[in-house]
Formats: sequence, C-alpha cells, structure tokens
Amino acid sequence: MESSKKNKGRLCVVGIGPGAVEHMTQRAVEAIRQSDCVVGYNTYIGLIGELIGGKEVFSNAMTQERQRCLAAIDLALHGKNVAVVSSGDPGIYAMAGLILELLNGRQDVDVEIIPGVPALCASAAKLGAPLMHDFASISLSDRLTPWELIEKRLHAAASADFVIVLYNPKSKGRSTHINSAREVILQYRAETTPVGIVKGAMRVDETVVITDLSRMLDYDIDMHTTVIVGNSQTLHINDFLITPRGY
Amino acid sequence: MESSKKNKGRLCVVGIGPGAVEHMTQRAVEAIRQSDCVVGYNTYIGLIGELIGGKEVFSNAMTQERQRCLAAIDLALHGKNVAVVSSGDPGIYAMAGLILELLNGRQDVDVEIIPGVPALCASAAKLGAPLMHDFASISLSDRLTPWELIEKRLHAAASADFVIVLYNPKSKGRSTHINSAREVILQYRAETTPVGIVKGAMRVDETVVITDLSRMLDYDIDMHTTVIVGNSQTLHINDFLITPRGY
Repeated sequence: MESSKKNKGRLCVVGIGPGAVEHMTQRAVEAIRQSDCVVGYNTYIGLIGELIGGKEVFSNAMTQERQRCLAAIDLALHGKNVAVVSSGDPGIYAMAGLILELLNGRQDVDVEIIPGVPALCASAAKLGAPLMHDFASISLSDRLTPWELIEKRLHAAASADFVIVLYNPKSKGRSTHINSAREVILQYRAETTPVGIVKGAMRVDETVVITDLSRMLDYDIDMHTTVIVGNSQTLHINDFLITPRGY
Repeated sequence: MESSKKNKGRLCVVGIGPGAVEHMTQRAVEAIRQSDCVVGYNTYIGLIGELIGGKEVFSNAMTQERQRCLAAIDLALHGKNVAVVSSGDPGIYAMAGLILELLNGRQDVDVEIIPGVPALCASAAKLGAPLMHDFASISLSDRLTPWELIEKRLHAAASADFVIVLYNPKSKGRSTHINSAREVILQYRAETTPVGIVKGAMRVDETVVITDLSRMLDYDIDMHTTVIVGNSQTLHINDFLITPRGY
C-alpha cells in the first residue's frame, strides 16, 4: 500500500475554547504548534493566528464541514500531522463526529480528540453560575434536524425544569426559531424566568445581557449567541444569574 | 469600614479541567499562580500540586462545600487573592454557584469565574464523539435533589431522544440509582443503545468502557465516573461512540 512508505499520519481534532488564546488548554496549544497543517473554518483560524505561524492552512466557509474534514483526512493519509480546529469543544455540535464518521474505523491514521472549554461553559461563566443544576443543550438549527424534533426536545426540557442552553438560536435563514422556542418554554415557565444572552464570550466583541423570558427578544441574538434560560429556581442577583443547587 | 484599609480582595473560581495539568487552560494556570491562597477539596488540590508551591492552602472533605466557600470568602474579605478550585468546569455541579450565593451581591470582593473543560467533554473526547447532538446532563445524586425530580428528568430526556450524560451515578449511600436510571431509559430506548463509561478521564488511572444498555451494569461505576447514554442514532464503530449530526 502506498501509505506504508510514509510516516503514519496524525489527526488531532482540537477545541480552541471560546476564542481568546488564554482560554485554550495547554494540550490544545501544543497540538497546534506541533502540527504540519491546520484545517478549520475561517473565523476560527483567525482567532488563533498567533499559533499558526508558517504552517499550511486549509480554511473555508461555515457550511462546508464535509469538504473540510475530507481535506484533513487526505492530508493525514499522506503522512501529515494535522490539527482540525473547532471553537469551543470539538465534540459539541462541531467537527469530532464528522471526522470519526468519515474515517469509519480505519486504523492507518492516529486520531486524538482534544477537548476545549465549550461555549456553554464560557457563557455560563460570564453570566455567573446558571448551570449549577441539570441542564439540556438544544441547537435551534434545522439545517440538519427536523424542527418537529427540536420542538419535542424544547417541550421535554422545559416541562422537566431543566436549565436550557440554546445553541444556534438565530441565523438569516431562520430568524423566527428563537421566538418559537420562547413560546414553547413559556408554556411551562413564568415570564420572569431569568435569561442570559451571551455573544462572543471571551472575545474582544463580547456582549453579556441578563434579562428574562418576557423581554429576551428585545436584545440582539444571532448565530454566534448562546442563550441560557434558567429553571424555576434560577436567581438574578446584581450582575449574576445563579441556579442554586441546594447546599 | 475595616475593609477600606485593605486591598480589595479577589476570588477566582477556577475550573482545573479533568485532572491533568495539560488540560487546564492557560488562564486557570495563571490565576492559581497569581493567588495568595488556594481553597478546594483535597483530591483536586492534589491534582495541581505542582502549581501550588508554598501557597497557603485550605482543603477539606467532599461534602463540606459550604464551609470551604465561607473560608474562601473570608480570606478574600481580608484582602487576599484567593483561587477556589473545582475539577472540570466550576459552573457545572461545582463551586461557582455557592460562592455567588454566599456573596449575595456584595461588591467588596472582585469575582471571576474561570471556565474549564467539564467532565462531560473530557469523557466524550475519550469515547469519540457521543455529544454531537442535543444532550441532557443529569446528576443522580439525591443528596440535594428529590429523587422524584431526577426521575422526571430522566423520563423527559429519554423520551425526547436526548443523548444523556449522568453525573454522580453511584456512591456508597446510593448504589441503586444507576439501576433505576437505566430502567427508566430502557422504557424508551433499545437494549443495544451504546453506552460509554469513563472513570478519571485524562488522569493516570483513567478507564474507558464502551458497552450498551443491556450490559452496562457489568462494569465498575462509582462517583468519579461519567456515564454517557447514546440517543437512537448513536453508533459504535471500533473504539468510538459517534452520534451523527446528519452532515
């Protein structure tokens, strides 16, 4: 086989955390430094420019995940040490799954998934401590998931008093999903339930809003925003959201 | 006021990640290095011994969270720079909430919540990519939460096909909760549904098991274990769990 003549390739799927290099893990920094080439969505590559130096870079647009992963696998099969970068954690709505699906069990590439601080933790940290009790994470993007299933999950999470983290709450193509999600949650929770809206947590353009279910649509929400809806116990004290655990 | 004569104290609530120092963020390392004193549960203090050097340390047993947080606040009110350390992320079943509750809005201490890689991401990374779709995180500890509410959340999460992350699945005082949780989930999912069991992710004594709902109780599960139950789409391919997102 052709690949037997080469070094065994290596694929690290690296979570770069919320965006600032100081919130990357040391293992993630090291994996990018040691790589021959870096593959990722343009915005993420931009966030870690200082680590990339003269490396080969394959970057493209947001929706071309499959093409990006195939390029990364191809580079690794040619013996390269490849870092595939995702913001947040690579295993939460990011690239780890697609890389492993496309590899489909082949053993001629070494794979390492390197976790990072997910957007839900970075956003929670900026809001205080809203995730101290059981929570559900739901993406409102129906690009890959039928809206009916998303709505079923919203009902389930809201009815069982989970704190709810909403990823991908809004984009140009689906500006009304966040309104629909709010309507579902309001069937189970008071209008005064605290809500946190965090955009670009720990990036230079970060914005943090604490509001409630009645007023949340008055604020700017886009696809880079994480929305956290409190449970029935969540408190808003000064600048913080706190979900008591009951100590 | 007495405190006006002193430096303003500082409290950093620091997530140290799964355990190995290489999986801490650079911000977390820096906050611990810059602190005057470090407060935390004995085991966590042990994990980061190399960072603590000659600092003042206040450590105690697992269940004395309130006493630990009060000690940290007291040190900060005396003008110290205090790092309160939690494993994983400080905002997920950890210390951030209780610190903010006890501070109750007082402004004479600066507070920073420093996120870390949570156990759910570290465990998922060792298993492959089980969290690629919507997931619910549920603690099976009924020390602070009525079992009826835990069971209600298990039903809700299982019925809406969330991937389910179980924290605190078992301890000496509640050895049967994991059995009860499994029974609930089996009302909605096949016995062949993949399950990952990770103990001490990224620590020297790490163990990683991939099994399914029918056989999961054959393996060692304790309070340091994270259990991840796949949704109806989760695949087990060679050494990996993968929940496809549908690309």
